[in-house]
Amino acid sequence: MKTIDINCDMGESFGNHRVGNDQAIFPYVTSSNIACGFHGGDAVHMEHSIRTAVKYGVQVGAHPGYPDLAGFGRRKMDLPPQELKAIIKYQLAAIMGMARSLGTSVKYLKPHGALYNAAVENQQIAMIVIESVQEISRTMPIMGLAGSLFQDICGSQGVTFVAEAFADRSYEANGKLRSRSEAGALITDPNQAVAQVLDIVLKGQVKSHDDIMIPQQVQSICIHGDNPAAVSILRAIDQSLENEGILKQSFI
Amino acid sequence: MKTIDINCDMGESFGNHRVGNDQAIFPYVTSSNIACGFHGGDAVHMEHSIRTAVKYGVQVGAHPGYPDLAGFGRRKMDLPPQELKAIIKYQLAAIMGMARSLGTSVKYLKPHGALYNAAVENQQIAMIVIESVQEISRTMPIMGLAGSLFQDICGSQGVTFVAEAFADRSYEANGKLRSRSEAGALITDPNQAVAQVLDIVLKGQVKSHDDIMIPQQVQSICIHGDNPAAVSILRAIDQSLENEGILKQSFI
Amino acid sequence: MKTIDINCDMGESFGNHRVGNDQAIFPYVTSSNIACGFHGGDAVHMEHSIRTAVKYGVQVGAHPGYPDLAGFGRRKMDLPPQELKAIIKYQLAAIMGMARSLGTSVKYLKPHGALYNAAVENQQIAMIVIESVQEISRTMPIMGLAGSLFQDICGSQGVTFVAEAFADRSYEANGKLRSRSEAGALITDPNQAVAQVLDIVLKGQVKSHDDIMIPQQVQSICIHGDNPAAVSILRAIDQSLENEGILKQSFI
Amino acid sequence: MKTIDINCDMGESFGNHRVGNDQAIFPYVTSSNIACGFHGGDAVHMEHSIRTAVKYGVQVGAHPGYPDLAGFGRRKMDLPPQELKAIIKYQLAAIMGMARSLGTSVKYLKPHGALYNAAVENQQIAMIVIESVQEISRTMPIMGLAGSLFQDICGSQGVTFVAEAFADRSYEANGKLRSRSEAGALITDPNQAVAQVLDIVLKGQVKSHDDIMIPQQVQSICIHGDNPAAVSILRAIDQSLENEGILKQSFI
Repeated sequence: MKTIDINCDMGESFGNHRVGNDQAIFPYVTSSNIACGFHGGDAVHMEHSIRTAVKYGVQVGAHPGYPDLAGFGRRKMDLPPQELKAIIKYQLAAIMGMARSLGTSVKYLKPHGALYNAAVENQQIAMIVIESVQEISRTMPIMGLAGSLFQDICGSQGVTFVAEAFADRSYEANGKLRSRSEAGALITDPNQAVAQVLDIVLKGQVKSHDDIMIPQQVQSICIHGDNPAAVSILRAIDQSLENEGILKQSFI
Repeated sequence: MKTIDINCDMGESFGNHRVGNDQAIFPYVTSSNIACGFHGGDAVHMEHSIRTAVKYGVQVGAHPGYPDLAGFGRRKMDLPPQELKAIIKYQLAAIMGMARSLGTSVKYLKPHGALYNAAVENQQIAMIVIESVQEISRTMPIMGLAGSLFQDICGSQGVTFVAEAFADRSYEANGKLRSRSEAGALITDPNQAVAQVLDIVLKGQVKSHDDIMIPQQVQSICIHGDNPAAVSILRAIDQSLENEGILKQSFI
Repeated sequence: MKTIDINCDMGESFGNHRVGNDQAIFPYVTSSNIACGFHGGDAVHMEHSIRTAVKYGVQVGAHPGYPDLAGFGRRKMDLPPQELKAIIKYQLAAIMGMARSLGTSVKYLKPHGALYNAAVENQQIAMIVIESVQEISRTMPIMGLAGSLFQDICGSQGVTFVAEAFADRSYEANGKLRSRSEAGALITDPNQAVAQVLDIVLKGQVKSHDDIMIPQQVQSICIHGDNPAAVSILRAIDQSLENEGILKQSFI
Repeated sequence: MKTIDINCDMGESFGNHRVGNDQAIFPYVTSSNIACGFHGGDAVHMEHSIRTAVKYGVQVGAHPGYPDLAGFGRRKMDLPPQELKAIIKYQLAAIMGMARSLGTSVKYLKPHGALYNAAVENQQIAMIVIESVQEISRTMPIMGLAGSLFQDICGSQGVTFVAEAFADRSYEANGKLRSRSEAGALITDPNQAVAQVLDIVLKGQVKSHDDIMIPQQVQSICIHGDNPAAVSILRAIDQSLENEGILKQSFI
C-alpha cells in the first residue's frame, strides 16, 4: 500500500499574536514542524503544540528559523556562520528538551522560510544546517525540498533526508518553487492542490505552472498553515487519498 | 581539608553589547552560571562561555531569567505560572543541549536576578522553578540563597540544593541581602569581601551590615561579574583561601 | 442632540502576527487608539492604521504600552520612573511624527493594558503618564477610565481628560472594571452591550454585574477589538444609537 | 579660518548592556549620531545622550538602523521598501520628539551600519532613506560618505548632504572604505589617524591603504566610538587641529 506523510508548520503564534489555525489543522497532518521561538512561536506555544501533536498522534519536528520575529523568518539574513550554527543548535536543543519533558521526542528538523530557501540552494548554508543538527543529535533526519542541492549534500554527508513536495505552491520548470512574488505562486483551489498531490504520490512527478513535468520522489507533502484555504485543501487531500487507497502516515 | 566553590554569572553579553569581564573572571571561579538568552546572553555567547568553562575546568550551570533583555532580568515580572514554567524549561533545555554538543554537561541551575529573588521568598515561584527543572532533568541540583524559604522547599521536594552566600553583597540582620537601593549593598573593597568570605567558610556565619551574626552553611560563594571590583576581589579571595589552606573546588 | 465617541484599540498586529480585525472595525469607530510598537504594532502597521483612520475620518490617538510584546502589555511591569517616562515619550513622539507625515495629527493619548490599569489607580504612575505627555505635547488630552483617580489627577494638573466607559466589560459595584479572571468580565452578547451603552449615554450610569447603579459621565465608549463579538456589538450599537437619535462623533 | 566637524555614533547602549564610552567621547565631538532604539540604544539612553549633547554643546543627529539588536545593525537585511521606510520614519520621529522635549532639535540624519553601507551604493535604498527623511522633516540634511552614489542622489533630489570621511578607517583605491574583514581596515594608531585627518582637511584628499590619493571634500570627520583607541585618537586630533589653526565646530 502506498503511503504519504503530510507536514505543516505549526506553533508559530507568539504571545497574544496568533498565526495560523493549528487547532483545525492538527487532525489532518502526520508531521508538525514546530516553531522554536525565533521566527515565531514561544515557549508556551511550543509546549502547547507538542502536547497537541501527542494528542493527535502527529510526529514532532523542529522548525528553527532566523531570529527575525518581525519578518517571520522570511527575509534573507546574512549571519556569520558561527552565529547561524549557534542559533540552530540552540533552537533544536530547546525543542528536544521540551519534547522529552512531554513524553515524546523530536523526529526530524526542517528549516523555516528564508533559512529553508538558503539551505536548499546554498552549499555553505546547507552544510551549516547539517553540522548544527549533527552536533546536537547525530542521527536526526532533515526535511527539505525534493531534488535540491540540499538533498544531494545531505546524501553525501550521510544524513537521512526526508524529501518533500508542496501541495499548495506552484513550481517552475527547473523544479524550484515559484516565487511568492509571482502570480499563481500559492495554490488556493483544493481541486488543483489535490491534482498536484496525486501527481506527486502516484506518478512521482509534479507539473510546473507552464506544464513541464518534473520528477519528484518524496516522502512528505507540505501544506502551508497560513494558506487561507489550508483546511479545505487538507480535507480534500484526505478524501482523495482515501479514494485512491493511499495511506496517510508519518515517514518514520 | 575545607573546600569551597566560587560561582559567578557569565555569558551575559548580547550580540555586540558587552556585559561583565568574563575573560578575566573565568580563571578564578569553579562554577559559572551561564545566561541562556532571555535576560542576557545569546546562542553565540552561550557556546563561547561553555567552551571557556571547559577550557578552565569550570563547571557549567544554567542561569535562566525573565524574558526582559532591556531590564537585564532584574525587574519583577508577573508572568502566568504556565508561561514562567515554559520559559525556564526552554532555557534549561537549550543550554543542556548546547553543553552536551560541546562535550560537557550542565551541573546545576541557578535562577537569575528578579527570578532568583522571587524564588527565594515566594513559595509559588519556588515550586514553579523546581517543577520546571524536574521536568527537564529530574535530578539536577538547584543553587540558591542559603537559609531561604527556597532552600526549605527544595529540601521538602527532595531537590539537591546548593546553598550559596555572597562575597560582595552585604546582609540584613534577617539574613536577606541588603537591597541594591540601600547604601553599602554592594561590597567593592577586596579586604571586606575577603573577611566576609572567611567568616562564611571558616565560621559558618556572616555579619550583617549592622553587625548581627547570621549562621550560613553554604557550598558556594557568589561574586557578581558586573561588580567593578570583581577581579580584584577574586584575586584577594584566591590568596586568602590559599593562606588559610582552604581548597577552591566545584561543589560536585 | 446627544453625541458619543466610540473608541477601539487598533494597529496591534506585529509583522506577520495578526491581532484583531481592524478592517472590519474601522468603519464603526470615531476614535482609534493606535499601538506604538511596544506592546504590539510596528512601524508598518502604524502607518497602515493611520492611513485607514484618515480614510474613514476616524481620529488618531496614541496608545503606548509596556515594552512587552510577548505579554501584549497586559502584565504588570515594575519599571523605574525614568524608564517609564522615556518609553511613553518615545512612543508618543514616534506616532506624532508618523501621523504628521501622513497629513493628520494625534488627538489624544490613551495608555494600554497594564499601563492603563496602573495609571487608573496609582498616583505615581498617573503622574508619570501626565508628565510624559506634557513634555512631548503640552495640551494633548488623555483618555482614561471615568470616575478614576487618574481622572482626578488629570483634573488637578490641568490636563484635558476624556472619560470613557466600556461597552463590553462588566463593572464591579465600586466602579472598577471586573477583572478578566472573573466570570462575565467580558460582554459578548450584543444586546447586553447595547443596553450598557444606552444606560451610559442616556442615563449617565452603568449597572454593575451585581446590579448596583454607578454614575458615569463619559465622552467616549470603548470596545475591545479582540472581543470575538466586536463587530456584532459595534453594529448593534450603531443601530441603537441611530434609533435613539444619538450622534456618533469624535470627542474633539 | 578652516573649520571641521567631528562626529561619532553615540547612545548605543541598551538597558544594562553598554556599548562605547560616551562619557569620555562627548567632550571631543561636535556632532553626535544618536541611536534610535533599533540597532542599539533605547528610550532611556536616547534621553541621556541628548541631555549630554546639550550639556557639551554638541549637535544631535538621528542615527537610525536596521531592527537588529543582536547584529548591532551591521548585517545586511532585505527589508521590503515599505517596511524600511516606515522604520526610518518611526525612528526619526521618535528622536525628534525626544529632542524637542529636552530643549534642542535634531539637526541631521545619518544611517547606521549596514543601512549606511546600503544607502551609499544602492540607488533604491538611497531613495528610500531620502523619502523617509523628507516625509518627516522636509529640509533635514543627511550625512553620508563623501564621493558616494548617495551623495550624488541627495544632490539630484535637492537634499543637503553632509559629506564625511573617516579618521579611523582605511580606504580602498576606489574611495570605498576597506572592509572590516580585511587587515588594517580599522586605524588604531593616533598618529596615523591624525595624518589622515590632516590630509583630508588641509589637502582635500585621503591616501588609500595602497597609497593612492583620493580627493575628499568633506564637512565632517567620523570616528568610531567602539574603536578601542577612540579617546586617544580624539585627543590627538584635537591637539593637531589646534596646532594647525583649524577650528573644530559643527557643520551647521
